[in-house]
Amino acid sequence: MRIAVLGGDGFVGWPTCLHLSDLGHEVHIIDNLSRRWIDAELGVQSLTPMDSIQERCRIWMEVTGRKLHFHLLNVATEYERFRGWLTEHQPDAIIHFAEQRAAPYSMKTDRHKVYTVNNNVSATHNVLAALVETGIDAHLVHLGTMGVYGYSSIGAPIPEGYLDVEIDTPNGKKEQQILYPTRPGSVYHMTKSLDQILFQFYAQNDGLRITDLHQGIVWGTHTDQTKRHVQLINRFDYDGDYGTVLNRFLIQAAIDYPLTVHGTGGQTRAFIHIRDSVRCIELALGDAPKAGERVRIFNQMTETHRVRDLAQMIAAQTGAEVAFLPNPRKEADENELIVKNDQFLALGLEPTTLAEGLLDEIVDVAKKYAHRIDRKRVPAVSAWTRDIAARIETDPEGKRLRSVS
Amino acid sequence: MRIAVLGGDGFVGWPTCLHLSDLGHEVHIIDNLSRRWIDAELGVQSLTPMDSIQERCRIWMEVTGRKLHFHLLNVATEYERFRGWLTEHQPDAIIHFAEQRAAPYSMKTDRHKVYTVNNNVSATHNVLAALVETGIDAHLVHLGTMGVYGYSSIGAPIPEGYLDVEIDTPNGKKEQQILYPTRPGSVYHMTKSLDQILFQFYAQNDGLRITDLHQGIVWGTHTDQTKRHVQLINRFDYDGDYGTVLNRFLIQAAIDYPLTVHGTGGQTRAFIHIRDSVRCIELALGDAPKAGERVRIFNQMTETHRVRDLAQMIAAQTGAEVAFLPNPRKEADENELIVKNDQFLALGLEPTTLAEGLLDEIVDVAKKYAHRIDRKRVPAVSAWTRDIAARIETDPEGKRLRSVS
Repeated sequence: MRIAVLGGDGFVGWPTCLHLSDLGHEVHIIDNLSRRWIDAELGVQSLTPMDSIQERCRIWMEVTGRKLHFHLLNVATEYERFRGWLTEHQPDAIIHFAEQRAAPYSMKTDRHKVYTVNNNVSATHNVLAALVETGIDAHLVHLGTMGVYGYSSIGAPIPEGYLDVEIDTPNGKKEQQILYPTRPGSVYHMTKSLDQILFQFYAQNDGLRITDLHQGIVWGTHTDQTKRHVQLINRFDYDGDYGTVLNRFLIQAAIDYPLTVHGTGGQTRAFIHIRDSVRCIELALGDAPKAGERVRIFNQMTETHRVRDLAQMIAAQTGAEVAFLPNPRKEADENELIVKNDQFLALGLEPTTLAEGLLDEIVDVAKKYAHRIDRKRVPAVSAWTRDIAARIETDPEGKRLRSVS
Repeated sequence: MRIAVLGGDGFVGWPTCLHLSDLGHEVHIIDNLSRRWIDAELGVQSLTPMDSIQERCRIWMEVTGRKLHFHLLNVATEYERFRGWLTEHQPDAIIHFAEQRAAPYSMKTDRHKVYTVNNNVSATHNVLAALVETGIDAHLVHLGTMGVYGYSSIGAPIPEGYLDVEIDTPNGKKEQQILYPTRPGSVYHMTKSLDQILFQFYAQNDGLRITDLHQGIVWGTHTDQTKRHVQLINRFDYDGDYGTVLNRFLIQAAIDYPLTVHGTGGQTRAFIHIRDSVRCIELALGDAPKAGERVRIFNQMTETHRVRDLAQMIAAQTGAEVAFLPNPRKEADENELIVKNDQFLALGLEPTTLAEGLLDEIVDVAKKYAHRIDRKRVPAVSAWTRDIAARIETDPEGKRLRSVS
């Protein structure tokens, strides 16, 4: 297949490109390199030393003899160039990662909120409008998030995208299937919830074939392909905005920084290893919906854990201390989470569990690159509201940690 | 109250400004005049001769001694200017009409789809982000549409915004209240569905006070205020993109053009007279939600009718012929529609019914300005998909009407 990977230079995008190239697909990376620019903006860098995209592609060619095509293009702002690219290259599938993906970054300031909404909505909608206009029947695979549903205390199992409801009508109760109602908890999550509505419309009006992967929190660094050369290594974010909770714990343990649990740590979240993430994308690609079919929605996760249990698990393996800090997010202190992922299991996914993968990560990545860590970048400081920001500012434990670093 | 009316130069915006000014409020019109530019783009004009916004404001001052403040500002693209405006003027309420509002226009080409999504989402989100950033506790009243729900054949009554659902949990069934599920039928309607998600988030995260008015199809021209001077007259669109169904029938009858019913005419829609529309906005303003309350949603409509019944009603009053044409839209041929509007009735709305208002419109507006009609602009030609466009192109009845005109 000829596959366009929008956002193919990112944390999940890059290993996805290598995985698909390794399977023999013709892979085109379309990226505006915004994530690298945001590193510059925030003054942070990947824990792992990361080459330019051009150099990464060159190394992949050297190691495997396979070509990765790179196109510098902003899908959100260069609609005509993107449409022209589609017409010229006629991809069989498009994998869409081209969205700002950090909740804390999306909540930093009004500028970050506006950027996240404009960028993410325009990117997704431009892809859809261009597919309709060019008449290209490519399967669109989008990376969404489990977080669209919010994390309520109701404890209902999250089904794979849809919910059956009974509606009262003058002729009695009728069954209807609706998109599972969303209640996003950040501007970032909200944009993925907007994406759902865009997909629903274009599948219904134009028969576009769309798969939406509601991904859990990704952890880990290596895939079989990124391991093949030191310069193919994946990025690893540990800062308070882009670092995901589990990867941050690993790093904190490696540098004797207390594991920072926000609130009670009673938040239950869904997780998936980066290796399984790229495998799920392969499986979704192989199982495209037909034209006229509703959007296919998968929950792309393998296990759920409470944040404080994760901290304790890593503390037990490493001897790290656990610090409970005020929560910069506005969210439920404690929640249950039951997620259905039957579709991926049926397609043959064999999950990498935390139990087997954690120690590798600590040794291979966290300890190996610990000297590159800027301790000042570890605290999570982007607050969801002004009131919360004020509360964090005055927290004695937060003060202690900032003085440690 | 000091009230900002975003999009205050438009079809509902303008009479709203006059109505609120008449009630003694300090009204600020914020508009980028995009609707006038679109007239130029499409080569159409309002049936009623419409002065510049500056001239309209001057006349209103002359007639009433009340000042309307006009600010040329694009809310969608000039975030910082808008935020600066808010800080300077500290409005008590904001009424948000600043969105591209025609479904057919939103479906014309990919450029129109992209424009509609970018403009509408950015405008709404910029208002929300700016309110949070400036800390201004203004009540935001937004004009949405009944069309967010689509028009399914299920025949369920449309409640005022929310739906109670029962969700299975490991601890038994639990009741939950969700936003009534949307299934928009055009890119335009889709943007209003996206707005709902934006409102839900900002009410929940930041305690913004928001009222979302799901409006039916507006008909009529005059309000008590627009009648007070010929140069205060409201705009009246009759073209295939911006003309609303009932106003189009009135015009068609006035120029002996067959009343164009698309499909079977079995579509049931909700209607409201422009006079009631501005009155509903007044009522909504007087009934603001409190901070922390969920978004207040009203159905802003007064009666429902089947399109073919409307055509027959007007044919009977005027002797016009009815022509059944292929439908450029992708929608159900026939649908039931029951809409609850208890909240507005409870607040004291006294609807203007079709039965009493129709004849006035035919005489006062349609016949009076019939000489200004460009018959070539009457057909509705924006098709929802390429297949539909092809079908319309070859329709013999459509050919006949185009040759008549």
